[in-house]
Amino acid sequence: MFEATASAPVNIATLKYWGKRDVNLNLPTNSSISVTLAQDDLRATTTARASSEFAKDELYLNDTLEPLGKRTLQVLAELRALRAEIEQKDPSAPKIADLKLQIVSVNNFPTAAGLASSAAGFAALVKSISLLYKLPHNDSELSVLARQGSGSACRSMFGGYVAWEMGSETNGLDSRAVQIADVNHWPNMKALILVVCAEKKDVSSTSGMQITVETSGLFTERVNTLVPELFVKMKKAILDRDFGSFAKYTMVDSNQFHAVCLDSYPPIFYMNDVSKSAVRAIHELNDQYKEPIAAYTFDAGPNCVVYYLEENEEAVLSHLGQAVSNVNGFPVEKMGSTPASTSTPKWADVLKTGIERVISTRVGPGPQPLTTSLSKK
Amino acid sequence: MFEATASAPVNIATLKYWGKRDVNLNLPTNSSISVTLAQDDLRATTTARASSEFAKDELYLNDTLEPLGKRTLQVLAELRALRAEIEQKDPSAPKIADLKLQIVSVNNFPTAAGLASSAAGFAALVKSISLLYKLPHNDSELSVLARQGSGSACRSMFGGYVAWEMGSETNGLDSRAVQIADVNHWPNMKALILVVCAEKKDVSSTSGMQITVETSGLFTERVNTLVPELFVKMKKAILDRDFGSFAKYTMVDSNQFHAVCLDSYPPIFYMNDVSKSAVRAIHELNDQYKEPIAAYTFDAGPNCVVYYLEENEEAVLSHLGQAVSNVNGFPVEKMGSTPASTSTPKWADVLKTGIERVISTRVGPGPQPLTTSLSKK
Repeated sequence: MFEATASAPVNIATLKYWGKRDVNLNLPTNSSISVTLAQDDLRATTTARASSEFAKDELYLNDTLEPLGKRTLQVLAELRALRAEIEQKDPSAPKIADLKLQIVSVNNFPTAAGLASSAAGFAALVKSISLLYKLPHNDSELSVLARQGSGSACRSMFGGYVAWEMGSETNGLDSRAVQIADVNHWPNMKALILVVCAEKKDVSSTSGMQITVETSGLFTERVNTLVPELFVKMKKAILDRDFGSFAKYTMVDSNQFHAVCLDSYPPIFYMNDVSKSAVRAIHELNDQYKEPIAAYTFDAGPNCVVYYLEENEEAVLSHLGQAVSNVNGFPVEKMGSTPASTSTPKWADVLKTGIERVISTRVGPGPQPLTTSLSKK
Repeated sequence: MFEATASAPVNIATLKYWGKRDVNLNLPTNSSISVTLAQDDLRATTTARASSEFAKDELYLNDTLEPLGKRTLQVLAELRALRAEIEQKDPSAPKIADLKLQIVSVNNFPTAAGLASSAAGFAALVKSISLLYKLPHNDSELSVLARQGSGSACRSMFGGYVAWEMGSETNGLDSRAVQIADVNHWPNMKALILVVCAEKKDVSSTSGMQITVETSGLFTERVNTLVPELFVKMKKAILDRDFGSFAKYTMVDSNQFHAVCLDSYPPIFYMNDVSKSAVRAIHELNDQYKEPIAAYTFDAGPNCVVYYLEENEEAVLSHLGQAVSNVNGFPVEKMGSTPASTSTPKWADVLKTGIERVISTRVGPGPQPLTTSLSKK
């Protein structure tokens, strides 16, 4: 029995991935940038085992045996091929490439939260099996495998601030994640996740992005002109620790991503009236400070992620006030007890009733090898 | 005492005007297309009087004396200048250009409905004073004056299907409305206005469009490339009475207009969750029919205008079902009593509680001279 365990983080894009130029390989139409969140609050942990006693490959997700999807099978086949190369070159290496795998994976956050768990999941899968197989590849090379499982999973192969460079090769080998800066570069970055009560979304990301690619008249301008400009500017803002610029670009890009969704036919709506109230709340706060001290961003769903620097935590939480005090599921420290203004603005009421959970977290490191392993239930 | 009275219609754009290249003259960044609605349901009626007994210009709007705004003063000055030219050339013409004016205007629909009343209002003002002054100008020439009061007012100078050609001259003399087809060309076109309960909007159209012009990265592509293409196609669809194409272009353009609003910084939201439910309802209906039999369009607010052909009225109303049966203020004929499907979709609940009034109307003629005049209360 061979075994390895690793954890991997969630990442939230500040420059969004939306559109595939190759659906099978998850090759994107534009480069993207993300912030990796702390694994204390949000992580996937995976134990991979290889044994001649296993009759078939098995995947246990949060204690439930799940069928192996097409993408998972593709990633496993690639990892096995890399192990097989090692075994061919080094006859002393144990022959484990052909052994069946048992993969046990758990998330430390509820799937119901609507947070992209597939990124952390595929990153943990790739990391744990790469450890099991003792692959010599670096995390950028491994990100090419994670990308095939779920596009944004490639960015979860690094901590801190991460770029997914879209690449240009048809085999996708240059479409991979690289670290812009590590977790210690700008450690006072914090993230507040406002989980919005909502039904299941209308359109999955996978089919949503294809509808946009095929029908949005504005999409080409975004991916060919606007995102490449913003990519350079956002990278610089991160390297310069220029929060005002980072925040503005993050908000502009989130809005533009949702704009091309709306410009699709039929239109795709991920933000709802609660999401819009969060947008209003953050702009009102930034207006009070005459500069951005907080930035919102929305993935393919109504949840709002707010980035801010730790020194402004009191200001951000007290501005959101009641909206973030009525939490459950996760504790939020230093909660504001009263809103900044005496008259309650309309957005505050909408947020108060529309937010069902708040997760307060920060920037964190990349995948971690672990010595304790998960057993299947 | 000299006097003239005219009524003018509301128009709802199917290719939206959004963005000014000259704020003072209301010169647009793109051409637009609209459908003129029947005056039985929605009209402004204006009586203009000139008399040496009046001490100053006065404007009564729905029985209330209103201050004369900058734009109204500008339009009045232009109309007087045209009258003064006539009086100079023809010494027998009564000298009325310098007399003070009393303008009495009423709408036959509540201002609270949130329907753009300024278009009908400025068209009725220009039409009534042009009659009072016996101006020889045609409606396209008069539309240049109405445009200076409110951009979209120029399109209310014609009935049926109307184009506002953006023009290129800096004085704006070629930025005017022309009729694409009159009310009899495609008389079975109907419009259902779903008036959505909402607070006052966050951002006025005037300031909203300037924010978009200045900040949206996607805006240039829309006005320089996409709208000019759609303008040609939509005009052809109208001339060909091709409802499927007309409907698709109308929906695509409405969504794209709201997309560039969302791409503005800070983002502008006019559609709310009720609006989105109307979008879902219409796409679901069209999917059932395998072709568009109804089209939604949204101006700078949450209200939905649905265009459809009279022969599909039963299908449209019965699909919307309860959502349009719970009306007040205006009668709707042939209301559907039950939704098409047995299980109530989510959008139906949202529409039922979110729509406060339904106006069922059709395409109508342009401004009308009237013999009965309005007295000020």
